[in-house]
Amino acid sequence: MGTTVEPIARMASQLARLPGIGQKSAQRLAYHIAGMPEQEVHDLAAAIWQGRKAVHYCTICGNYTEHEVCSVCADDDRRNGQICVVRDPRDVAAMERMRDYHGRYHVLMGTLSPMNGIGPEDIRIRELLQRLSTEDVSEVILATNPDIEGEATAAYIARIIKPMGIRVTRIAHGVPVGSDLEYADEITLAKAMEGRREI
Amino acid sequence: MGTTVEPIARMASQLARLPGIGQKSAQRLAYHIAGMPEQEVHDLAAAIWQGRKAVHYCTICGNYTEHEVCSVCADDDRRNGQICVVRDPRDVAAMERMRDYHGRYHVLMGTLSPMNGIGPEDIRIRELLQRLSTEDVSEVILATNPDIEGEATAAYIARIIKPMGIRVTRIAHGVPVGSDLEYADEITLAKAMEGRREI
Repeated sequence: MGTTVEPIARMASQLARLPGIGQKSAQRLAYHIAGMPEQEVHDLAAAIWQGRKAVHYCTICGNYTEHEVCSVCADDDRRNGQICVVRDPRDVAAMERMRDYHGRYHVLMGTLSPMNGIGPEDIRIRELLQRLSTEDVSEVILATNPDIEGEATAAYIARIIKPMGIRVTRIAHGVPVGSDLEYADEITLAKAMEGRREI
Repeated sequence: MGTTVEPIARMASQLARLPGIGQKSAQRLAYHIAGMPEQEVHDLAAAIWQGRKAVHYCTICGNYTEHEVCSVCADDDRRNGQICVVRDPRDVAAMERMRDYHGRYHVLMGTLSPMNGIGPEDIRIRELLQRLSTEDVSEVILATNPDIEGEATAAYIARIIKPMGIRVTRIAHGVPVGSDLEYADEITLAKAMEGRREI
């Protein structure tokens, strides 16, 4: 369109690169931002840029942090012998929302994916093994996603760690709480049956 | 959460203020941005802030522009006697996408809404009347939304302008092209019947 306003078009094309924001919503957002008070737009842009600059990876677990070491790793009460292995920092946030896990984390920054050329050396498995040799770890909880890549990654790590005499567990798969059996897919149902317990 | 990373939480709370972005997607976006290359985040934040600073309202029609006057008003070929009245700049973009209208615009920056205390002096009606007395206008096309406020605003403006001897038209309401009659609401169907034409 010859009549599109250039700065708004530039805004929209940047916003459209974010996940879950299509061309249409990007344009809607750009028009909205163009009409917002300057101070509010300044605060938004600053939160994005300053936020990105302030965030690093925890040198121990790989989670996001403002500091050298994340708040979980910095908390000695959480050095309880458990390490929960997840794919990315978002999964740490999800586990923390549960408020029920009191150990530490290890963020892999990906999962094994031979199709995409991602092998064991491309994710933080070596760093995990290093931690197991220096920290006092009694259990490694594999909490990668219950999909093909997540399962393969969990199986791979379990195969390496088990011979070290460390307990290795996998989070349970089953029917989500509050959901309807009718809508569960067969694999989830099969996993739910397989993992059934005496009540 | 005690373990939320502050800069990411700040990013998320700013993003959640945008329309159509809920708390959950804001957090997902913030985590994504935290993991993006610094240069890309810089480009995003710059496009937002520079974009907002570069955008002004056209001194003639009220549309967004980088300049004193928008590209439509600056184009003498579009000074054809028609003025299309819309609610906000986004509606100008929608009309321009149609590529079929060759006149100028007038952006009201709102619609009459007694319920919300928005009267004729709160939207750009005075500016429209000023244009009618200085520009050579033969037709005013009222293209406010086909909702209660849009209709009331169109009716109000028509009442003022008609006595000036200027042709006043309203865009047609009817069943959207490509949609299914079955799913049209009754008011739309009634408007479609009312606006029927000989073929």
